[in-house]
Amino acid sequence: MAKKEKQFVEEITKMEDDFAQWYTDVIVKTDMVDYAPVKGFMVIKPYGFAIWEKIREYVDRRLKETGHKNMYFPILIPESLLNKEEEHVEGFAPEVAWVTQGGNKVLEERLAVRPTSETIICNMYAKWLNSYRQLPFLYNQWNSVVRWEKTTRPFLRTSEFLWHEGHTIHETAKEALDETLMIINMYVDLVEDILAMPVIPGKKSQSEKFAGADDTYTIEAMMKDGKALQSGTSHYLGQNFGKAFNITFSDRNGNLEYPYYTTWAVSTRLIGGLIMVHSDNRGLVLPPKMAPTQVVIVPIAANKDGVMEEANKIFDDLKARRISVEIDDRDNYSPGYKFNDAEMKGIPVRVEIGPRDIENNQALLFRRDELSKSEASLDNIGQTISDLLEDIQSNMLEKARKNRDERIYHAENMDEFVDIIENKHGFAKVMWKDNAENEAKIKELTGATLRVIPFEQEELGETCFYTGEKADYMAIFAKAY
Amino acid sequence: MAKKEKQFVEEITKMEDDFAQWYTDVIVKTDMVDYAPVKGFMVIKPYGFAIWEKIREYVDRRLKETGHKNMYFPILIPESLLNKEEEHVEGFAPEVAWVTQGGNKVLEERLAVRPTSETIICNMYAKWLNSYRQLPFLYNQWNSVVRWEKTTRPFLRTSEFLWHEGHTIHETAKEALDETLMIINMYVDLVEDILAMPVIPGKKSQSEKFAGADDTYTIEAMMKDGKALQSGTSHYLGQNFGKAFNITFSDRNGNLEYPYYTTWAVSTRLIGGLIMVHSDNRGLVLPPKMAPTQVVIVPIAANKDGVMEEANKIFDDLKARRISVEIDDRDNYSPGYKFNDAEMKGIPVRVEIGPRDIENNQALLFRRDELSKSEASLDNIGQTISDLLEDIQSNMLEKARKNRDERIYHAENMDEFVDIIENKHGFAKVMWKDNAENEAKIKELTGATLRVIPFEQEELGETCFYTGEKADYMAIFAKAY
Repeated sequence: MAKKEKQFVEEITKMEDDFAQWYTDVIVKTDMVDYAPVKGFMVIKPYGFAIWEKIREYVDRRLKETGHKNMYFPILIPESLLNKEEEHVEGFAPEVAWVTQGGNKVLEERLAVRPTSETIICNMYAKWLNSYRQLPFLYNQWNSVVRWEKTTRPFLRTSEFLWHEGHTIHETAKEALDETLMIINMYVDLVEDILAMPVIPGKKSQSEKFAGADDTYTIEAMMKDGKALQSGTSHYLGQNFGKAFNITFSDRNGNLEYPYYTTWAVSTRLIGGLIMVHSDNRGLVLPPKMAPTQVVIVPIAANKDGVMEEANKIFDDLKARRISVEIDDRDNYSPGYKFNDAEMKGIPVRVEIGPRDIENNQALLFRRDELSKSEASLDNIGQTISDLLEDIQSNMLEKARKNRDERIYHAENMDEFVDIIENKHGFAKVMWKDNAENEAKIKELTGATLRVIPFEQEELGETCFYTGEKADYMAIFAKAY
Repeated sequence: MAKKEKQFVEEITKMEDDFAQWYTDVIVKTDMVDYAPVKGFMVIKPYGFAIWEKIREYVDRRLKETGHKNMYFPILIPESLLNKEEEHVEGFAPEVAWVTQGGNKVLEERLAVRPTSETIICNMYAKWLNSYRQLPFLYNQWNSVVRWEKTTRPFLRTSEFLWHEGHTIHETAKEALDETLMIINMYVDLVEDILAMPVIPGKKSQSEKFAGADDTYTIEAMMKDGKALQSGTSHYLGQNFGKAFNITFSDRNGNLEYPYYTTWAVSTRLIGGLIMVHSDNRGLVLPPKMAPTQVVIVPIAANKDGVMEEANKIFDDLKARRISVEIDDRDNYSPGYKFNDAEMKGIPVRVEIGPRDIENNQALLFRRDELSKSEASLDNIGQTISDLLEDIQSNMLEKARKNRDERIYHAENMDEFVDIIENKHGFAKVMWKDNAENEAKIKELTGATLRVIPFEQEELGETCFYTGEKADYMAIFAKAY
């Protein structure tokens, strides 16, 4: 009658064989996530949630340092409010979950489970704002949103996800634009410095921007299968919402004006990106700054004299350095099992220490990013490990950048473009003449979309690769999640 | 055409005249909260949310120190799951908001916006649990829940509120009971040490316990109007949910067993309690450990030589001591306005400094809790203020405890009981013979309910004040929020 216990580390599908299945195996078998009883929804388990908490702590700290404050707006939005900004409702209405009954009563008006909070926030800002002296409003909230999706994949696209959403209003267009750009640059810091994911920051085309925005700024990352992941966005919405919701203030001359609005977000989607940029066929590879456990110590022959003592010494040394460390002293698993388990979980450094190591005054250090082992003297092992963690953090970013740069190709014509997208599985950088219809045609033909107009422009030529007309700018196209 | 700017601190209704209106004035006029477009819902503004963040930080840290981990479970729960535990669904079904449409499709099964997460969590625990070796599961989540309420008041009772909900399962009944009690004791620490609210910890009667629990433990606080506020609860649910959701594990002998379950929560309701325990007719009174701003410095005649320099010196000194401090240097408001504003916002200490103070090498310190002023030498003003904040924190707890203790009366019979509840507006402590029907009769007659069977029992007599039978224990009855 007894249930079975797992006594082996489960196999992960190879990413070369089936990238999608590899991804699913990694997130499910490392206990990051599970499927919820409602289709398209996910349960984020402690190991996945600990990663989200690190993202959250970083962003929350940076936002507070730059004068932003947190608030909380209700989860339910009346349909009439959602309908007030025309482009916005067109973008979101098809994805809304509707509450139609409260307690035993059928509601007179349907209520949307928030797909995003612009409409309810603008409704309140209109009530609160009177004078230019109150501006800017620099507010943010952490919550979950619901968007009814047909095809879902945990972290990447789910019917509910966690995020933060910033909503600021400003006296002038310039201030609002500065805010939009400050935030997208903060996201670059987050994703590159902490998640070790190289990104290309820039602007979206008009057809790819947020529903209701004047301009959307984005950071785009490349996954190991060559697809793009939009990893964070910051929107400049001008006065559109101000006008739709009648948000006004007395300006410095006593005239009524509409404020300029910005919104921005990163979400649990980033965790999906983190996995698809770094991980491998053994499982997760986590950069030290994102790893819930940075170092695991595995004692070999733990019952032998001195082994546990030495393991505990290293543990205390690392703790004192504020390194997150665990000793795997489970007595019902073999060292081999523990090695595999720690590798699958992406723990950046593993320390192996047994009687023979102690005789030689050393321990073995295994680094997850390079799958390589080295010997380290016990004399200064705390410092050695601390340096190693820093090296892993920067190595992972550089390695990911190299992988990505090797797969960004310049396309001078449609043949080259199709080859890049369909055979080389990379990003196509092209000179581009702004044209929404042509974007749609390319999407239909190849599945690739205009991901970003990079801030850092290169002079690849003078004419649009698609039409031969004079080009407006360099753009990057790719297939995307 | 220009909108009006507020140039005066708004009046607050006196609590003696209308306690409910006083409460509303305090929370709305201090910008803690506003009413949302959907009836019964609230917007928590930055000043209110900063207070919630302090509660959250404390609880999250304590939970992590005791081995708990955070997760995230979906917001929507299928009706069939909600219906699985009989007592539980009876308790919650009348308050559920139902999603019946997702995108453009009518759903086959209604989905509840979570009123609490036991059912979806047990559904997953059943899937995850195999062996006693995995136990305990010590998991928690921070989120919002929706319960359709007829009569609402911000923070105290709203159709949506923020909380954390812990859900643990254990191998033995004893371990689960230990957990339940450990958590209620942690809540006592939170509410007494940080919110400076004295509470009575103990057990609920069977008629007042959580729907589906074997036993509910509570902390009850007294508000300034003599009513009780249930300020945190920890439930021991035994094997009820384990059986309803078929959560089983192989025990140490290889037999299948059901685990023992605990759940517990504190919510944004605590903010309502904080206000009704400490605040007064000038507005909020915040204990230093809960105050977003602990000290405000108001420079008098700020344009005079040396005033701003001295204000900045104090500011830097306090910052270095990790005291949260602001200088109110707004040039469009008078010192008198600033004093009133800081008092209304409940800032624990106000520092007034002007040219004459500097001549005397001193500043004036105003303490919000006692509405009293004292002179302080500039020589060691940082330390003086730091000590003052500590004194305010402990003084507020002691003052509230004294206020409360003076309004707890022993009732020996029903006449005395009615007098306590209706005229003295206090808590009635009585000897009680356990009887749900009699509880219901007393509630109907007086509006008072059995709030708590205190851990700390007093021997007030031998017989039940209501029936004259041999009493089981001492209990406290009161009207409640």
